[in-house]
This record gives sequence, C-alpha cells and structure tokens, in this order.
Amino acid sequence: MSHKPLITMTTDFGYDDPFAGVMKGVIYTINPNVNIVDLTHNITPQNIQEAAYTIGMNYHYFPKDSAHLVVVDPEVGSGRRPLLVVADEHYFIGPDNGVFSYLYKNAARDLKVIHITSEHLFLKKDSPTFQGRDIFSPCAAWLTTGLDVDKFGEAVSDYHAIELPSPVRLTDVVMQGEVIFIDRFGNAITNIKQTDIADLQRMQPEGALRIFLKGKDMQLRSYYSQAEDRGISALINSSGYLAVFIYRGSAASEYGILPGDVVKLVLSS
Amino acid sequence: MSHKPLITMTTDFGYDDPFAGVMKGVIYTINPNVNIVDLTHNITPQNIQEAAYTIGMNYHYFPKDSAHLVVVDPEVGSGRRPLLVVADEHYFIGPDNGVFSYLYKNAARDLKVIHITSEHLFLKKDSPTFQGRDIFSPCAAWLTTGLDVDKFGEAVSDYHAIELPSPVRLTDVVMQGEVIFIDRFGNAITNIKQTDIADLQRMQPEGALRIFLKGKDMQLRSYYSQAEDRGISALINSSGYLAVFIYRGSAASEYGILPGDVVKLVLSS
Amino acid sequence: MSHKPLITMTTDFGYDDPFAGVMKGVIYTINPNVNIVDLTHNITPQNIQEAAYTIGMNYHYFPKDSAHLVVVDPEVGSGRRPLLVVADEHYFIGPDNGVFSYLYKNAARDLKVIHITSEHLFLKKDSPTFQGRDIFSPCAAWLTTGLDVDKFGEAVSDYHAIELPSPVRLTDVVMQGEVIFIDRFGNAITNIKQTDIADLQRMQPEGALRIFLKGKDMQLRSYYSQAEDRGISALINSSGYLAVFIYRGSAASEYGILPGDVVKLVLSS
Repeated sequence: MSHKPLITMTTDFGYDDPFAGVMKGVIYTINPNVNIVDLTHNITPQNIQEAAYTIGMNYHYFPKDSAHLVVVDPEVGSGRRPLLVVADEHYFIGPDNGVFSYLYKNAARDLKVIHITSEHLFLKKDSPTFQGRDIFSPCAAWLTTGLDVDKFGEAVSDYHAIELPSPVRLTDVVMQGEVIFIDRFGNAITNIKQTDIADLQRMQPEGALRIFLKGKDMQLRSYYSQAEDRGISALINSSGYLAVFIYRGSAASEYGILPGDVVKLVLSS
Repeated sequence: MSHKPLITMTTDFGYDDPFAGVMKGVIYTINPNVNIVDLTHNITPQNIQEAAYTIGMNYHYFPKDSAHLVVVDPEVGSGRRPLLVVADEHYFIGPDNGVFSYLYKNAARDLKVIHITSEHLFLKKDSPTFQGRDIFSPCAAWLTTGLDVDKFGEAVSDYHAIELPSPVRLTDVVMQGEVIFIDRFGNAITNIKQTDIADLQRMQPEGALRIFLKGKDMQLRSYYSQAEDRGISALINSSGYLAVFIYRGSAASEYGILPGDVVKLVLSS
Repeated sequence: MSHKPLITMTTDFGYDDPFAGVMKGVIYTINPNVNIVDLTHNITPQNIQEAAYTIGMNYHYFPKDSAHLVVVDPEVGSGRRPLLVVADEHYFIGPDNGVFSYLYKNAARDLKVIHITSEHLFLKKDSPTFQGRDIFSPCAAWLTTGLDVDKFGEAVSDYHAIELPSPVRLTDVVMQGEVIFIDRFGNAITNIKQTDIADLQRMQPEGALRIFLKGKDMQLRSYYSQAEDRGISALINSSGYLAVFIYRGSAASEYGILPGDVVKLVLSS
C-alpha cells in the first residue's frame, strides 16, 4: 500500500468561521496529496491546557510521521515563537505557549523542539493575527513533502511549558487528582491514569476502591451500561484515564462538575 | 477514472471531542487511500432510531461498495455484538442494537448480516468503552482494502431490530403517520413517503389533500418559497418524505413539534 | 507534485443533518480523486450576504482552478437559475440569488457568469428542494474532471447581485462603515479595508486615528494581545478588514454589537 502523509488539526476556531477551511486551502496549495483530519476545532477558546491534553492523549492513533497542527494561540502576533516539535516519530507545529506541554512531560526521551525561523516557507501575504494560516499550515504542508526538520530553524531548549497537574499520593491508601475536562456526554475526565490506580492498589490488593467527587461516593465499572440505574459511577475511559459518568445522563451537568474539581481515591481495607 | 474506496461516518460523538478524528486516524493507518465523509456526528446522543433513519435514507447517495460506519452505541462494552451488514451493494459496520433497522426493513432482498468475530483485525490496545475506534474503524478500513466479508465472521439471523413506525391507513381516505425527526431549519420530517400519499390519492384522484399536525391544517407545496406568507405548510422533501415547514421560519419551535407527534392526511371529496 | 482538484463548500446546512455529507457522496461518485474542504456549513440560515462575504474574502487561499460550492438558497425550487461563475481563475457554483455579489463587485475584470442548463449533468433522481445535491454538487464534480465551462450552459449578464455596503467618506477626515459579521470569538468584522484607512490617512499623515462603535472610542492595535487590559480595541484582521475586539473576551456580546451597526473613523489633527 502506498504511503500518503497526514496532517491533523486541533484549534479553537470553531465551525462557524472559515478559518480552519482556509488553513486547508493553504495546505492543499502546497501539497495536494495529503490527508487532513480535524481532531477538533472546538477547543474552549484560548484554553491552552485543553489543547495540550487533546493532542497529547490522541496523536498516537495516527500514522507515524503525521504532522499535528495545534493552533490555540491567544498571543498571536506578539513575540511568542512558532515551534516544530519532534516526538515519538510524530511532528507537532504550533505556538510556543505550552500547547505541547503533554509531550514535554511524557515523550521526553526523543524530544526535539525547533524554533521555526525559515520565513521563506511562510505564506507571502501574511498578517500578524493569523499565523495558523500564514506560518503553521505552510510549515506542516512542507513537512509532508519531505522537507527535513533542520530546514525549519534551530533547536531550542527554553521552550514554554505549562503545568499539567499530576495526581498526588496523600497517604498509602489515598490518591488525589482532578477533573481535566468534560466531554460531550457530560463525562468528567480526570488526570488519574489506570496505571496510577494500579500503583495504589499494589499497596493493598484486597482493598475496595472508593472514588469521591463533589461529595458523591462511587464505584469503578468496566463499561457505561454496567452502571444502569446506579447513578454516578466511574470507569477507565478509552484513553486509559479515570472518568466519572452517569449512564444515559450527564454527570457534569447533574452535579455541576467543572475542570479543576478534586477527585479522591481511597483504598479501604 | 480510478476507483477510490469511501467510508462514511454517522455517530453521536459531536464535534467537541476528538473521538471522530481518532477513528479517522485508525482508518488512515490501515488504508491511507480512502475518502472519508462525515454524514453527521450530531446524532442525538444514544438515539438509535435517529441513526437508523439517517444512514438508511442516505447511503444510496454514495458510491457502490462504500463502507458506512454507524456508531451510536449506549451498550458499548456489554455483550452486544459488532456487526457487518451487506445490503444493496453497500457495507455497514456498527453495533447490534438496531442502528441498521431501516436496512433490515427496506433492503431485505440481498441482506447479509455478519457477526464480527475476527479479533486479529481489531486495534491491539483496545478498551471496552470505544469500539468505534478499536473494532468498527479497523474493520471498515480492512473492508476498503478488499478483504472479503467472509473473513470478518459468520452470518447470523438473530440480529436486533428496532421498530421503525410505518404510517397506518385509518380509513380509505385517512392516513396517520408521525414526526420522525426535526432538521436544522426546524422542519419536521414525517414517516409518510411520497409513495404512501400516491397510494392514498389513488382512492379518490380528484380529492383535495389536507394535512393535520398539532391542530393545524395545511396544504402540500412543491418547494419552500411557494409557502411565503402562508404560515405552516408541507411538502415532499428531498428524501421523498412528507415534511412540515414554515418558509424562513422554524415550524418545530413555533408549534412545539417533537418526534413522535401524530400527522394525519385526509382526502376530502 | 501531481495536480489534484479541489472543491470547497459554503452552506447553511449546519452539522446536525446529513445534507453536506450527501453532497460529498454525490461528488465522490462522479470524481473520487478530488479534495473536498468545508469552508463552513454554519452560514446563518438563508443569509445570502454572509455567504457572499465568506466565499469572496477567502477563495484566494485555495489553489487556482478550485471549484467553490455556495449553497445558501432560500428560493430553491422556484424559478431562480443555477449559476457557474468563473472569476480570477476560480470556479463558483450556486444559485442566482446574490451569493456571488462579492465577486461581481471585486473580480469584475475576467468575470464570466454561466446559466447552468445542461440537465444531463444533474443527478437523475432529482427533487425541487435540494439542488445542492442534485445540480450544484454534480456540476462541481464534473468541472473537476476537466469538463469545459461552455458545456454547462450559456453566458448571461442579467445575474442577480445584492448590495454589499461600502464605507462612505463623510468628510476629508471622517469615514463611516458598518459591521458585516461577528466571528466565533465575538469579534465584529467591519466593511472597512486596510486600504480604505490608508486612503483616509493620506489626507493627514500625522493625524491620530480614532474609531467609534456603539459610543465607544478605541484605538488601532497590531495584534490581539497588545490590547490586554485596555478593553474594546480595533485591529486590521487577517483578511485585511478593520475588526473590533476585546482581548480574551467577546466585544459583540459585551457591547451588543450586531451586523449593520455603524462604525466611524475620525482622523484628528
């Protein structure tokens, strides 16, 4: 089967305005033989942390050598640098404002961060307010034509990372994490991984796991419909993170759950 | 012109979360030379009937041999089976929960329903909560590479169908149907087909057709702007179904029309 | 690099219903080797002016010879004509209701407007209410296979244009324009171009530019984050138009700005 390059897009441009479509026009003008996938254009406007989680938790479902555009960029036009990040045999293009922090934290072994300075690659009629169109899209397209990463600029080490909260072990049998985002179904996704729970349970393999959020006490299920008629519940979601849900309902709106809310896991003997 | 395979997607994943994009990543990893079309990702969450109508009424606008993913799947992770349905020279992949009922009802001649059991085709790192990513997308992608349907599993006949309400003939000159969904423009689409109306009119070819919904009495128009300044009206929509509308307005919100509301057709002499 | 044709879509069909997806099915059935880009499907329902601005201000970011579908069509089914417009080495397909007025006004030099009458190119099972599917999509697809524009119908000169308001010079130092649309971020885009402002400033190169909207008096910034903590501000946006914004806020909702609101520019000595 022949190889065909792929570009993903993660932005806060929404689906009302033509911004994302225009970026695709710029890409196809440079490389018409590329697949483009919208990861989402509905990142909460200017929410860098949400963008960081979205690309960080999902890029590995795409082919190796994919180029991932991440354009959540409140500082566009100011001095912040455009970056090309190479990590885990994938490419990431976007602003130096922390949108790649998940990669900095989790894919650190083979990380390479390049400050894009090769202005001859940019769109000619550029504007200070839409670098997604004028800088990031052309760079992603040139990457998929086979242009070497060294042609984009010099490697830097002083890139800007934002804090992505990790769960904390309060005692041998208590772990505290937080809600990191709410999905379309009203499920509250936390920053606690399946592997974190396994670590906790290693202390007391026979212990019963109880999960607390917003004063509610719930149990871990394997899949959504297992919780039928049992109210608010939790499971390990398809990305390997602890998520709180109501079967055929919205946990977030029923209990007013918001990103940042504290989740506690307790192993009882 | 060279052939290029096509996959459509019909889901309730929405456009906020990366679920649909991730499914495309899985597809392109297996077969980069495929066109992917979003039919919609805004099926009302967990509304199996709406999904059944959406795919059933629209698949024939796509090329023969297209693969149609339908992922509205509240029971994901439970025992419900993954299916591959062959009907009318098209392929359909999704859960055995009734999403293919329109096909069972209307494309019965050449219908083949296969319980997908070939686990070697699935994504390795699978989760019980996202079979759209782990089972349905890879199977659709493998189909488009030319893999024979018999390689996916065994044919079954005990698949799960849901009731899709048919219009009922109350008397020689009265037919009763119902609203099956509301579109973006606030048009109320009914389950009464153009051919049902033709059957009714055969009884009394000179009779005037009157249409009743929510206590309103309306006439059949040929196209939307014909009803200018005439309030709530009806026409045969582009899928061949009776639809109730207000020109440049929303019939559904103005009259509180909901799926399930009764529509009556009366032929008066 | 091999050439691959491209079709864009600008409609008011939204993302809930399968209309846009069905149009893509029709296109790929005729030409599977085409890239399709959604410019937007969220034009305000039946807002012809918004569609005219959207396609007119963005088509030039796509490759030459692209075919641009514009389907905002409240009169569908009535006598209004289907058109193929050739302008600036791009093709535009849609109804004769004014959606191409921006092109008529700004790309007049090499403009060619063809009334599409070649019914053998249309979808066979046609309906009077969905010409986007039955007429416009097949014609766009046939264009991308290389069919000559003369095969679609005869050139006409009595096409329907709508008024797109231009800014007016009230005195040597005062210019009046209006808001033409609001984007996802709540920015109010006006009909005043960067070149209009340059013309104004030529009168008094040393003068300070003040911008008035809704009783607020604001200054011109270069990029969004420059206006931090300074409330409502203005800049030249990425399309070259004056836009009013609040950094990390919504100017439109905070000040109740709507399309049609008057904007005044004053050069003070």
